[in-house]
Amino acid sequence: MIQKLIANIKKTNAPIVVGLDPMMKFIPGQIQKAAFSEYGETLQGAAEAIWQYNKGIVDAVYDLIPAVKPQIAMYEQFGIEGMIAFKKTVEYCKEKGLVVIGDVKRGDIGSTSEAYAVGHLGKVTVGENRIAAFDEDFATVNPYLGSDGVKPFLKVCQEEKKGIFVLVKTSNPSSGELQDRLIDKKPLYEIVGEQVAQWGSECMGDAYSYVGAVVGATYPEQGKLLRRVMPKAYILVPGYGAQGGKGADLVHFFNEDGLGAIVNSSRGIIAAYQQEKYARFGAENYADASRQAVIDMREDIAQALAAR
Amino acid sequence: MIQKLIANIKKTNAPIVVGLDPMMKFIPGQIQKAAFSEYGETLQGAAEAIWQYNKGIVDAVYDLIPAVKPQIAMYEQFGIEGMIAFKKTVEYCKEKGLVVIGDVKRGDIGSTSEAYAVGHLGKVTVGENRIAAFDEDFATVNPYLGSDGVKPFLKVCQEEKKGIFVLVKTSNPSSGELQDRLIDKKPLYEIVGEQVAQWGSECMGDAYSYVGAVVGATYPEQGKLLRRVMPKAYILVPGYGAQGGKGADLVHFFNEDGLGAIVNSSRGIIAAYQQEKYARFGAENYADASRQAVIDMREDIAQALAAR
Repeated sequence: MIQKLIANIKKTNAPIVVGLDPMMKFIPGQIQKAAFSEYGETLQGAAEAIWQYNKGIVDAVYDLIPAVKPQIAMYEQFGIEGMIAFKKTVEYCKEKGLVVIGDVKRGDIGSTSEAYAVGHLGKVTVGENRIAAFDEDFATVNPYLGSDGVKPFLKVCQEEKKGIFVLVKTSNPSSGELQDRLIDKKPLYEIVGEQVAQWGSECMGDAYSYVGAVVGATYPEQGKLLRRVMPKAYILVPGYGAQGGKGADLVHFFNEDGLGAIVNSSRGIIAAYQQEKYARFGAENYADASRQAVIDMREDIAQALAAR
Repeated sequence: MIQKLIANIKKTNAPIVVGLDPMMKFIPGQIQKAAFSEYGETLQGAAEAIWQYNKGIVDAVYDLIPAVKPQIAMYEQFGIEGMIAFKKTVEYCKEKGLVVIGDVKRGDIGSTSEAYAVGHLGKVTVGENRIAAFDEDFATVNPYLGSDGVKPFLKVCQEEKKGIFVLVKTSNPSSGELQDRLIDKKPLYEIVGEQVAQWGSECMGDAYSYVGAVVGATYPEQGKLLRRVMPKAYILVPGYGAQGGKGADLVHFFNEDGLGAIVNSSRGIIAAYQQEKYARFGAENYADASRQAVIDMREDIAQALAAR
């Protein structure tokens, strides 16, 4: 699947992943109104609004981008109905040829991580059958429990040719509270980065491994160091746009081959119509605003890479 | 909810939580057969088997125990149908008067952790309505992202009088890879323990805080230290039984008042009938075996506490 991700990036010339994180406040009024009039102001109504909103965005941008990253929390908060919208979104994006990164940040002790790996990337055994449940292409994984919690994901990745992105240095303001603390003079994130490189060496695609890392755009210096520590790991870079990361901050996350990183933008794309810059589109044409925001982001990254 | 947990512990005289982690290999053949003959060897069939199995155990032990801890991964691996079984299990246990600890180990950047907090402990806003989705009483939380990822849970806990258990020192063999590393001469778990004490000081019940911690029974010395670092935090102690923790290892997790810790056992209770010790019950009477295992565990802990 890392090969498919790279092929999609080369085809679109856009190292971009659109974060499908549908908060209700982003969803245009007409979509909410239609969903609520059909299902009421219920979890089912919310899930329908999410699904229609996502579908509009995906239809408008799928030819421009290699991948999407639905954040499962934004669906899970609406319970079973929300999870159904998550699953529909994953399936629809895969039908459109997109790579789907499930931003699930799971991680637990061995037997439990195995269940998460099976449920999100693999197939669960029921009697004589093996059945895929959520079936994303990649999942994000939390490393706090150590190798026990990561290795079951590696096993499923090897079987299914899928991949993971391990949280290394997250984009949020407080990520340094633990991740920046020095251990034998190295920050914790560097130690996790070394583990990612190690885990990845057991799961190589061609030039890149199935084991990637999450490093926030908001921490470009750390990105520079981690790029060297994990040369074969694809870096998933959140924090561009709404969280403050800029195109120029991103160059250190890429390798010399122009590959090695994929930059996420969520609200900057999916709620573009709410920005002054794209207000001319209006809520009716929110998906067109998203398309324009993707084009602008692609240009911003291309310029930054050309200027390095 | 911490008050209800403590009241339930005092009432039952059993600082025990039963981990409802229904792996297919634990579920007696007759239950699988009935479920599969109704729904086929499908996700729905698996979910029905899980639900019937759980119900049998809960009916057999609910009067003896204060709380249950369903591990969501064991449901999530069966997709939407599994999540429905999770929700039914949560609801049923609450009807039986049990405190429900959702072992979800969620944690993300602020806005995303807020969605998890709302979905598992709070109420999500849909139009004019506020609706509870999964509605557990407690949730487990991963601290790797720092305060940003924990504070949205605290906010919901304050609003809803619910609680969390933050992963501090997990029970698995590799937990030390990151958690034991020394930072300014202190292990990382101690630093997280200090944060738990700090977060908890903002969310006090009576004697104990809404913010508890997860510390594995497999690490009794670390438990001793952490008991001092977080005197007001309830400690959720996994790793007893199948993972190797013994009654005598548990005493350090409790305070002098006999409170302050609740010990989890999952397969040791729910799959007791598969142990030689309880084989006399047979698969037909698996729930009776679980009941006997709870009684024995209660006795083991009481003896250890009496001997200290």
